[in-house]
Amino acid sequence: MGPYHQKGCDMTGLFVVFEGADGTGKSTQVSATAQALQQAGHEVIITREPGGSDVAEALRSLVLDPTTTVDDMTETLLFAAARADHMAKTIRPALDAGKIVISDRFVGSSVAYQSAGRGVSQHVVEEINQYATGAVSPDITIVLDMDTGLADTRRDTRGTVVDRMESAPDGFQEAVRASFLVQAETAPERHLVINADQPASTITDQILTYLQTHHGVTL
Amino acid sequence: MGPYHQKGCDMTGLFVVFEGADGTGKSTQVSATAQALQQAGHEVIITREPGGSDVAEALRSLVLDPTTTVDDMTETLLFAAARADHMAKTIRPALDAGKIVISDRFVGSSVAYQSAGRGVSQHVVEEINQYATGAVSPDITIVLDMDTGLADTRRDTRGTVVDRMESAPDGFQEAVRASFLVQAETAPERHLVINADQPASTITDQILTYLQTHHGVTL
Repeated sequence: MGPYHQKGCDMTGLFVVFEGADGTGKSTQVSATAQALQQAGHEVIITREPGGSDVAEALRSLVLDPTTTVDDMTETLLFAAARADHMAKTIRPALDAGKIVISDRFVGSSVAYQSAGRGVSQHVVEEINQYATGAVSPDITIVLDMDTGLADTRRDTRGTVVDRMESAPDGFQEAVRASFLVQAETAPERHLVINADQPASTITDQILTYLQTHHGVTL
Repeated sequence: MGPYHQKGCDMTGLFVVFEGADGTGKSTQVSATAQALQQAGHEVIITREPGGSDVAEALRSLVLDPTTTVDDMTETLLFAAARADHMAKTIRPALDAGKIVISDRFVGSSVAYQSAGRGVSQHVVEEINQYATGAVSPDITIVLDMDTGLADTRRDTRGTVVDRMESAPDGFQEAVRASFLVQAETAPERHLVINADQPASTITDQILTYLQTHHGVTL
């Protein structure tokens, strides 16, 4: 399904990533998509960033803790270290075994948060992450896009504890949203942008139809 | 004292790094050198890697824990993230304040352990660490060099718990030693190689004489 074997790699699974600001409904769509694919008989693993493996989850606790203070480059390298562990222990073995991997966030989030949000050079973020991922890219990144004010409201009404990334200064969330859209525009064949201000079931249908038509996923 | 102001930076302190395999007497020399410099009236801070700041010390616990399993790239990125935090919170502020910073290990250890030891490309290790350090290099790196077998014996008789780096496979410590010597040979003006199989006080005298004659440190 995935193009990995065409790149001379052994990986034959499909690597699907969900990106978008907090409050755009990523978790809901990750679950619904995985469930539909599993019901159709596919082997699916759900994972997330930062995290998805033992060392990466330890780093997640550190980097999202509101009491942690790190500069932007340290933050970039911490996310990259977590991603390298996640790739080595979770993503790559699952893709090699032919599974569908669905990750809640990936490199696109580092470009959006550390580069567009914090101001680290995008070239630097991308280069560090090339090392972290061993140059493996998602087959498809689904960007859940929504007006920043609306996402803020939905996030606030969730009533969960605000983490360090969500408590960033004004303008940060707008920069993050714009970055996801620019990333999609730059590589349209590997991105699907969806208006996230629609009923959840409508969004899931759009995702599944896309996977069927563009990646030959049977449903 | 340091050359930083010549590079257009504000840093005016002196950045001294000790490198060498475990068992070569780095801790002893770090203490003795710092004590002599303090007695001569200098403001000195002693620090170490991995570690030297709050987040970096948390990463130290993770990366040296013998039960932690990470691949070589994750290890490289973890050390780099710790170093970025160490640089931002400890080294740079002290150098900016005109102090002498003495660090037990720095980038040279990443080149030796992750590149020569583990096999990550030296170019990649150096590039990631350029980002981590903001391209700040030590004024002088003192390499304590010793026959690998002798260092092993001294390390073993210390009776301390063996960490994850020390329990690496055969040939690893030889590769590490050789890397420190090659690094010194490549940039002799920024390295001092000392035969570490001499009385501690003799070694300290050699270090202090070098700092006096090459870096204008008053004693």
